[in-house]
Amino acid sequence: MPVYKAPLRDMKFLLNEVFNYPGHYASLESGANATPDIVDAILSECGRFCEEVLSPLYQSGDEEGCKLENGEVTTPAGYKDAYNQYMMGGWQGLSAPEEYGGQGLPASMGLFKQEMMGTANWPFSMYPGLSLGAMNTIYLHGSEDQKQTYLVPLTEGRWGGTMCLTEPQCGTDLGQVKTRAEPQEDGSYRVTGTKIFISSGEHDLTENIVHIVLARLPDAPKGTRGISLFIVPKFLPNEDGGVGERNGVTCGSLEKKMGIKASATCVMNFDDAKGFLIGPKNQGLECMFTFMNTARIGTAIQGVGPAELSYQWALDYARERRSMRALSGKKDPDQVADSILHHADVRRMLLTQKAVAEGGRAMLYYAARLADHMVEGHTQGDDKKVEKYDDKLGFLTPILKGFLTELGYECTNLGMQVFGGHGYIREHGMEQIVRDTRIATLYEGTTGIQALDLLGRKVLLMTQGGAVRDFTLKIANFARKHVADKRLRSYSVELLKLTAQWNVLTMRLMLAARKDRDLVSAASNDFLMYSGYVTMAFMWLRQSAVAVDKLDNGGEQSEDFYRAKLATAEFYFERLLPRAQTHATSMLSPAKNLMQIEPDQMAFTD
Amino acid sequence: MPVYKAPLRDMKFLLNEVFNYPGHYASLESGANATPDIVDAILSECGRFCEEVLSPLYQSGDEEGCKLENGEVTTPAGYKDAYNQYMMGGWQGLSAPEEYGGQGLPASMGLFKQEMMGTANWPFSMYPGLSLGAMNTIYLHGSEDQKQTYLVPLTEGRWGGTMCLTEPQCGTDLGQVKTRAEPQEDGSYRVTGTKIFISSGEHDLTENIVHIVLARLPDAPKGTRGISLFIVPKFLPNEDGGVGERNGVTCGSLEKKMGIKASATCVMNFDDAKGFLIGPKNQGLECMFTFMNTARIGTAIQGVGPAELSYQWALDYARERRSMRALSGKKDPDQVADSILHHADVRRMLLTQKAVAEGGRAMLYYAARLADHMVEGHTQGDDKKVEKYDDKLGFLTPILKGFLTELGYECTNLGMQVFGGHGYIREHGMEQIVRDTRIATLYEGTTGIQALDLLGRKVLLMTQGGAVRDFTLKIANFARKHVADKRLRSYSVELLKLTAQWNVLTMRLMLAARKDRDLVSAASNDFLMYSGYVTMAFMWLRQSAVAVDKLDNGGEQSEDFYRAKLATAEFYFERLLPRAQTHATSMLSPAKNLMQIEPDQMAFTD
Repeated sequence: MPVYKAPLRDMKFLLNEVFNYPGHYASLESGANATPDIVDAILSECGRFCEEVLSPLYQSGDEEGCKLENGEVTTPAGYKDAYNQYMMGGWQGLSAPEEYGGQGLPASMGLFKQEMMGTANWPFSMYPGLSLGAMNTIYLHGSEDQKQTYLVPLTEGRWGGTMCLTEPQCGTDLGQVKTRAEPQEDGSYRVTGTKIFISSGEHDLTENIVHIVLARLPDAPKGTRGISLFIVPKFLPNEDGGVGERNGVTCGSLEKKMGIKASATCVMNFDDAKGFLIGPKNQGLECMFTFMNTARIGTAIQGVGPAELSYQWALDYARERRSMRALSGKKDPDQVADSILHHADVRRMLLTQKAVAEGGRAMLYYAARLADHMVEGHTQGDDKKVEKYDDKLGFLTPILKGFLTELGYECTNLGMQVFGGHGYIREHGMEQIVRDTRIATLYEGTTGIQALDLLGRKVLLMTQGGAVRDFTLKIANFARKHVADKRLRSYSVELLKLTAQWNVLTMRLMLAARKDRDLVSAASNDFLMYSGYVTMAFMWLRQSAVAVDKLDNGGEQSEDFYRAKLATAEFYFERLLPRAQTHATSMLSPAKNLMQIEPDQMAFTD
Repeated sequence: MPVYKAPLRDMKFLLNEVFNYPGHYASLESGANATPDIVDAILSECGRFCEEVLSPLYQSGDEEGCKLENGEVTTPAGYKDAYNQYMMGGWQGLSAPEEYGGQGLPASMGLFKQEMMGTANWPFSMYPGLSLGAMNTIYLHGSEDQKQTYLVPLTEGRWGGTMCLTEPQCGTDLGQVKTRAEPQEDGSYRVTGTKIFISSGEHDLTENIVHIVLARLPDAPKGTRGISLFIVPKFLPNEDGGVGERNGVTCGSLEKKMGIKASATCVMNFDDAKGFLIGPKNQGLECMFTFMNTARIGTAIQGVGPAELSYQWALDYARERRSMRALSGKKDPDQVADSILHHADVRRMLLTQKAVAEGGRAMLYYAARLADHMVEGHTQGDDKKVEKYDDKLGFLTPILKGFLTELGYECTNLGMQVFGGHGYIREHGMEQIVRDTRIATLYEGTTGIQALDLLGRKVLLMTQGGAVRDFTLKIANFARKHVADKRLRSYSVELLKLTAQWNVLTMRLMLAARKDRDLVSAASNDFLMYSGYVTMAFMWLRQSAVAVDKLDNGGEQSEDFYRAKLATAEFYFERLLPRAQTHATSMLSPAKNLMQIEPDQMAFTD
């Protein structure tokens, strides 16, 4: 059975060599305890937990799935034990405030942890992952009392959390939410309605589950401005902090899904369930979406992690499987055939995975620094700082979530392809990675929604192209510094061209959209993918610049590592980046070629 | 539960309006009975069978799968009954020679039938589909006695057939085959070995199963020139044509797969099984690959069919699902929100599916005419004619199989994406189409193998670019004829440019490959995809030319149909065809960026 190996070398390269996290942490209040040796110890320990505890449960969890009996959901064998180890290790509170039971480390540390956990076993990682969403919401909008009652046990991992948004008739368009909340005399509410697709809605890992629920007050305005946010616990908390009476929220059924079968996806029925308002009335959507950018980096991880895992397993297979001879002559003359790693087309697939896993990880680490600053701004009550970094993140997160999950899925399919027909057989695990990853472009805002958020809101509406100008300026300044080095010149020049092109494309879209509003939707997917390829190219230039420097200045012991980085960068710039130009062409294509066909002309049966 | 609707209008458009099949059939000996009214009746009847019998079993078959107990495989509920109807309808022998119990209709008719069956229920269609492979092999290489004994019941559908090639250590590289065949005194052989991935290896649909098996004689040379072909029946035939003694071939286990779960994929154990040599000794591979080009069109169908099915279901969903408002203003003001069909990005996904399904179908119908000529050449004993059309087909089939299955898979994923999170839930069927289609790029030669076959063998080695020159000449001649029509000018000009570029690219690769053999493998995937996009563009120009002509000359009753064709062509040329340029860029990229990285530099864990 294949296993996961934490890519600690690459993580440390990004941390210490590319993004200077030691310096970054030294500048943060929350970074006081994040000294290099502590960070190193935590990442190693987390890696070990992921390799030894979570990875072995990946395939068995898929095979077994979750079961619902008498309203109780049982997770696959080994999950509860693994969760207990996770809880006892204090992992849930790694980046949570110390005052509520956390370790107070920077937010970025939590993301590094999430990446390893999500790579080793994505479905497992969703249980603590969803809790993080509930924790964030209560931390940002809850009363002090609510924080003591709910946030502390959530931070300790004793309780789990969910986010209950989607209903049968709406997911994206939350203005259609129908769940009602009736005020009671004691200040609480009775919540009634049906929520679907609730990850971790019911399970046996924690003694209580805290649901964060979108619902409407009786007098609420229609649409998105009439939605409030409620805490609805599975068990009502006792005075002593323990669990008391069972509340009227139950799991009606488990969805049968393509993948992530070990993650319980529940239909949740709220039947006069006791709930507590969190945040201001009718501002539930805004509350729900505070710090959404940080959460979306978490989902972007599902682009990087599966690409990494699928790459690891495909690389092992490609080393061992023998078929035909390399076109340039026998490589393993004593064997019946050459290993398929010697075939250029197999390398094309593997290097695509490698370039996306490492380039995508760099994008995560780049964004995680911004998240640290934003969280610090919040802690310091510095709204300007929060806004500044939230804006920077707000531009990057749809790119990360949309682009990386699309490419991650492509990479899991390439991993399967390396296995040939064997990739289709369950025991090798490759098809599971594909199935598990397929959800990533659908939930937490489909790729289409990310694309519209990026182009329509963040770029055109909110900043009139300013977000692109700011980010490309950063890229161009970096590229200009390296244009003189002949090993980096072609990449730097290419990036300089792309930054100019990105701005021109943005301006052209802005002008064209004034005449034709549909153009924004028509161009959005291509704009998103284009933005992703350029951003990843920036990450590959940054990594290359470090590798060149290290090779020049005697990092002898790691020479191979740096050479591999440069080879991967070369592959990225020469074979993947050209795709950006297809998107550049398509995004300027008129919306007419999408909109002119009448709905009833789209199919003719006879 | 969603159903399949046979796209008869589009099929008849291609048959009668684009490719003049009535004239084509009139010119064929086997076409004597394929008059337009007969063809029409057969297609309608086949469509009805697919819609009413096969489509309803699609999801239940996946849910139930196949079961192996005591060496017997049970297919899902309803399969046996559906197969009986199929057999009683004489469908298996549609294009088989009359002298062996078939209806003697042109080969193309069989492909049209296969497309509908494969779209309605791909896993079911694999049972009769594999039999066709066995029938072809026996027809081409069997003795008259073998034909009477095996071919007749196969043609009637009473018996099923398989192709037993793959072994655990080899699939592509069949020179590694180990299965042995020991000659016996009675002229038969004892076959011993293990074959894997044997579709329809064991099942309950037919009274006997005829395995066509690759094995080695004791004195056989090593490698591919030492492999012979054997008929190994599950039950040895009686004198009276019925089934007799059970032979030593058994199903050891069923593979657990990502999809096509209703199709039994067997590990087959041959244990001193009685076999009969078919074709000359040690020329088994050549025999197996005769007419392989026709068979590969059959696999290419799995690109087109699932794109069609996924499109039908996604279109229905997009019409009904309401979310947000169209950017250009409310479309359904009385409703809570607009149907998602009004969002440009949703249309991008749907039109991609439509363009690939219809463009891919046109590619199939184009190739099917060539297959008819080749088969006629064989019937007439005209080797030159066979060679001529086999060469034409040989160039097209890797493009059809490789390119269409890759795009078909993309389209099934887009169909899921239109459903948002609901696409991930099994009941909607969208994720099943994805899982079932994922195999298409893996079996019958992976995309990588198709690409190498196209560029390495068919284009460079066998014809020194001649295959591209011949085909592009045909495209250019057609395009030149339509360059004067202003509605077709831009497409015609684009195709003229592309035909020139295709030749230039081929020449550049040929020259570069002389210096670096790895380049052929390095460029092959991009060359394949490029070839596919250009070929599909040719098909869209052909369809557009007919639509323009019909609109000019009063096909009033179908005006909407022709307008939709033109709108889809516009979408294809403006939004999908630009992808060809990315492949053009990448294919010229040096192999160095794939080959320079050392195998042991591809991963560093710490």
